[in-house]
Amino acid sequence: MNSSLGMLAAMLPGQADAALIISGENRRYFTGFVSSAGYLLVTRNNAYLFVDFRYAEAAKSIAAGCEVISFSDFGKEFAAVLQKENVKSLLYEGSAFTLSQAARIDEILTKCGAEGIRSDDADRCISKLRIIKTAHETEKIITAQRITEQALKDTLKLVREGVAERDLALELEYRMRKLGADGISFDLIVIAGQKTSMPHGVPGENRIRPGDFITFDIGALYRGYHSDMTRTYAYGYVNDKQKRIYSVVKQAQQLALDAVKAGVRCCDVDKAAREYIYHAGFEGCFGHSTGHGVGLEIHEQPFVSSKNEKALESGMVITVEPGVYLPGEFGVRIEDMVTVTSEGCINLATLSKELTIL
Amino acid sequence: MNSSLGMLAAMLPGQADAALIISGENRRYFTGFVSSAGYLLVTRNNAYLFVDFRYAEAAKSIAAGCEVISFSDFGKEFAAVLQKENVKSLLYEGSAFTLSQAARIDEILTKCGAEGIRSDDADRCISKLRIIKTAHETEKIITAQRITEQALKDTLKLVREGVAERDLALELEYRMRKLGADGISFDLIVIAGQKTSMPHGVPGENRIRPGDFITFDIGALYRGYHSDMTRTYAYGYVNDKQKRIYSVVKQAQQLALDAVKAGVRCCDVDKAAREYIYHAGFEGCFGHSTGHGVGLEIHEQPFVSSKNEKALESGMVITVEPGVYLPGEFGVRIEDMVTVTSEGCINLATLSKELTIL
Repeated sequence: MNSSLGMLAAMLPGQADAALIISGENRRYFTGFVSSAGYLLVTRNNAYLFVDFRYAEAAKSIAAGCEVISFSDFGKEFAAVLQKENVKSLLYEGSAFTLSQAARIDEILTKCGAEGIRSDDADRCISKLRIIKTAHETEKIITAQRITEQALKDTLKLVREGVAERDLALELEYRMRKLGADGISFDLIVIAGQKTSMPHGVPGENRIRPGDFITFDIGALYRGYHSDMTRTYAYGYVNDKQKRIYSVVKQAQQLALDAVKAGVRCCDVDKAAREYIYHAGFEGCFGHSTGHGVGLEIHEQPFVSSKNEKALESGMVITVEPGVYLPGEFGVRIEDMVTVTSEGCINLATLSKELTIL
Repeated sequence: MNSSLGMLAAMLPGQADAALIISGENRRYFTGFVSSAGYLLVTRNNAYLFVDFRYAEAAKSIAAGCEVISFSDFGKEFAAVLQKENVKSLLYEGSAFTLSQAARIDEILTKCGAEGIRSDDADRCISKLRIIKTAHETEKIITAQRITEQALKDTLKLVREGVAERDLALELEYRMRKLGADGISFDLIVIAGQKTSMPHGVPGENRIRPGDFITFDIGALYRGYHSDMTRTYAYGYVNDKQKRIYSVVKQAQQLALDAVKAGVRCCDVDKAAREYIYHAGFEGCFGHSTGHGVGLEIHEQPFVSSKNEKALESGMVITVEPGVYLPGEFGVRIEDMVTVTSEGCINLATLSKELTIL
């Protein structure tokens, strides 16, 4: 087994002889192999990746730390391994197996005199591993971030009166892909004017007008890893209220960034931004959390919310993204992605956060 | 309730008081409302769509045939409805609920003196409805197909020696989006030369060279509905073997199309193409099924395979896509999407299938 599989094997709860993983992200995380389907069985001493004939050859050359079993009849091959490894109790990846999928595995287990364990234990163990990024993982996240920044710089040149949000979003995505991204991290948010008051607005036919704020909440996907960044720009001109709100959000974001450090609780990072925003008079105008982890998923642990009392640890990658939203008027959000360190954090975003009028 | 919800309610198996649906496709299918999360509860007489605050307003104006319940505390709102409707047994959408999600619902059920039923019954009922497309659904599939065809026509102009597969795929996607697609139906397959021998090859840095076949297996997504089409073109010139294989696949595809008609078994459509290919000397070179249903999912029932003895019905939309693959040499696949009728089928694809040298 490789080290991540070894750690998972060591973390298996006492009553489980093995864990069965089905999600693509986790199969990729533990083996490095990407496929649209497959199963990863982790016993206390060995790991097996089951793939169908389409992936057999590639899996054997790429998948690390596990024995690759190519099947035409999964039930047969799986039962053989269960028996060889003497697996009597199998922990499901509860957040990924559907009821139907688990029922089909249950049938095989029953024939082998084994039983399935339904709990979130496997998910909890895996999350504990994935929450700390290795240098290789962080490198990919940084590459995704660099692609995002370059694509945004190039797309900003296209901003002019009358351009539709939807077209800017498409141009951004096209540029990310041209720059080597495998895709986008999530449906890109490019919204302007009044729509910026919606934290998760969808780009549409709405067109840029002078005096608008334009919010870009964007990210690229690179070799399985996501990036996430938000910048809010003004177009043409800004009024005093816009300037004031922008400055409040910028300062709140800086305070939260300053709070980030291994050992600090997630809720205290959230609090740093939230209290400043509330004291500035905008209580009720910041309805989401301050941040979240980023990695193989765009939203993953740790969640930087007022409710999460767990402490940050070195190697976590999180976003810091407070905002102020004034329904019917406009909104501002500023978001960086950072790596947590024992000293504070390393900001993975390099684009300016000064109020910029395009 | 609207008609599709009413039909589902009438189909609920005897032991179930209600069904709970969580998949985005099925929530959209029954209510017309699109959201990234939510639950649809269907009792024998009523239907309820539970959405969080983000979607409350939009759901109330768009969702059809059901009562919209916006929640901040799902458990509380859900329990209230269970009690009001006197639901004692709840059928899960087994193909969509994860073990973790079902466990959370189970907790609520227990508090209400109710229990969850784990089976594929709900999925089977829903599939029976979704397998027959309404005129509105088919219209969207046709629009997706028209977008795909126009984007392909435009992209073919970019084919020249040295262009990478990956770049052609990106240009195709960009054009689909510009033409109004909401996205792509699946990761577009644009592969050339030897790679065409892999039915599901991934576009990469491989570059077009004279004498190559180029396979485009592509589709656009339009308002939730998919399209699917494959064309294989030659670049520069073709040799006799390529001509021969192309002609075998084209004829096999025509024979399968000719076989399509309400009442005909799926396996007999598959057989029409398969026997011709095998008799032409290419047994073992056509390793996939002849087709599949298309709709809210890119692959859905009915599966047009040698194993499926169910009969086609009017209103089904299926693909017909035989191929011949010669490892280390090249492959050819030709795919149309058709609507099944009592007389035969209506071909939704309009692009020529004559062997074309670009």
